[in-house]
Amino acid sequence: MANSPTGDSVITRVVRLMSAFDRDLPSMTLSGLARRADLPLTTAHRLVEELVRHGLIDRLPGGELRPGMRMWELAARGSQALTLREIALPFMEDVQAAVHQHATLAVLDHGSVLYVERLSSPDSPLDAAHIAQRMPLHAASSGLVLLAYSSPEFQREVLAGPLEKVTPETLTDPQLIRKYLAEIRQRGYVALPGIGVTEWTGIAVPVLGPGNGIAAALNAIVPRAEANVPFVVPALLTAAHGISRALGAESRHPARRP
Amino acid sequence: MANSPTGDSVITRVVRLMSAFDRDLPSMTLSGLARRADLPLTTAHRLVEELVRHGLIDRLPGGELRPGMRMWELAARGSQALTLREIALPFMEDVQAAVHQHATLAVLDHGSVLYVERLSSPDSPLDAAHIAQRMPLHAASSGLVLLAYSSPEFQREVLAGPLEKVTPETLTDPQLIRKYLAEIRQRGYVALPGIGVTEWTGIAVPVLGPGNGIAAALNAIVPRAEANVPFVVPALLTAAHGISRALGAESRHPARRP
Repeated sequence: MANSPTGDSVITRVVRLMSAFDRDLPSMTLSGLARRADLPLTTAHRLVEELVRHGLIDRLPGGELRPGMRMWELAARGSQALTLREIALPFMEDVQAAVHQHATLAVLDHGSVLYVERLSSPDSPLDAAHIAQRMPLHAASSGLVLLAYSSPEFQREVLAGPLEKVTPETLTDPQLIRKYLAEIRQRGYVALPGIGVTEWTGIAVPVLGPGNGIAAALNAIVPRAEANVPFVVPALLTAAHGISRALGAESRHPARRP
Repeated sequence: MANSPTGDSVITRVVRLMSAFDRDLPSMTLSGLARRADLPLTTAHRLVEELVRHGLIDRLPGGELRPGMRMWELAARGSQALTLREIALPFMEDVQAAVHQHATLAVLDHGSVLYVERLSSPDSPLDAAHIAQRMPLHAASSGLVLLAYSSPEFQREVLAGPLEKVTPETLTDPQLIRKYLAEIRQRGYVALPGIGVTEWTGIAVPVLGPGNGIAAALNAIVPRAEANVPFVVPALLTAAHGISRALGAESRHPARRP
């Protein structure tokens, strides 16, 4: 494979280019892109020209560059994120109709929380948990749920750290986190204020897949001053049960005939 | 850039690998992937190993490969598909609540219709217009709307063909299509049965962006036997007006004070 003088492959350099775009900076000039991707301008130019030919990057009329729809299409067509989303969305709408709060769906991917769906509460400001954003597992209610139902080996690995303090209230003591994980498995939900974003409380429950392994976390994000946990939890549990069933999990509480 | 014996670059080969996955075949073995991408097994193996290291392809426990969540994340974070989707989704929910039919949002990308959002009518079978799928412009109501508001040069280019007959009812006569395009611009909507999928009628309206250029098409997909066009059109027009406003279009019918 063609390596640059620093030994990076073409794929690595393309990943660096595409990673330079984000929600806050969805388009930029070639020189800005080269700088953010830490690539020589000539290298960036050559790669970008080919990415534009493939539609993976679009050139706007003013010359700025942004990720192309073809990139999104390639990623989305075979993606389990979309399948999960298609299955979960109707149930998430039910949650929102009941509790009128932000609802998110998150998966565990490469050691962090990745938000794959979000329904927003209209006009409610929440600059976090956007679709395709990530959070550390220990700093999000969704992450604690995903961790609680993961293997003991994986839990050990995560709790060995580092455990970044995202807010003053982020849990960073492995012993304390273990206590919460046990509580989550027992109660079936978690509700913790301020561990990821100070002003907000995340209330999260597990979504199970085939074989009853953990598939996702369903989460309501509520202004902490108004967090009505006893009201939100049953709505989340009901929806999560529906999503789990639709994903092919077996019911944990099979209906019995008298 | 490292070219293969056939002259393909690394980027071209990676695009061919990623294009091999789709909705009907979301995971496959390495040899299946190499075959579908038309690459030698050793080449596919080397590229896949690196894509797995980057998380762009995931290896399932049984050894099958599928697109990784990291691929979706890279494509989604800076993507205008997600921004448009976030803006449009609440209005699409309103449409669905009113008409109880499939609602889709589509954009014009590289000469075809690309569906970027879809809300499904529960339990209604429609195996078309999935998210991230494409259709030829002339064989979809959304496509005709997108074409109607495109530049005359682009219209000429599309109508010069080829114009594939997707169903027996697909319009393939450039003169007839021109007539419909003029009608769409005059009426503000199109409703045509069976041009893309025989049993369904697509009812589509334009969504405008900043400067009142065409940004997307909002579409309801209705079983043709039950297509209640006079009922569906006002719901679509209302929602499309809301999405256009939220995208920054100027109102075409400014409110006047008496």
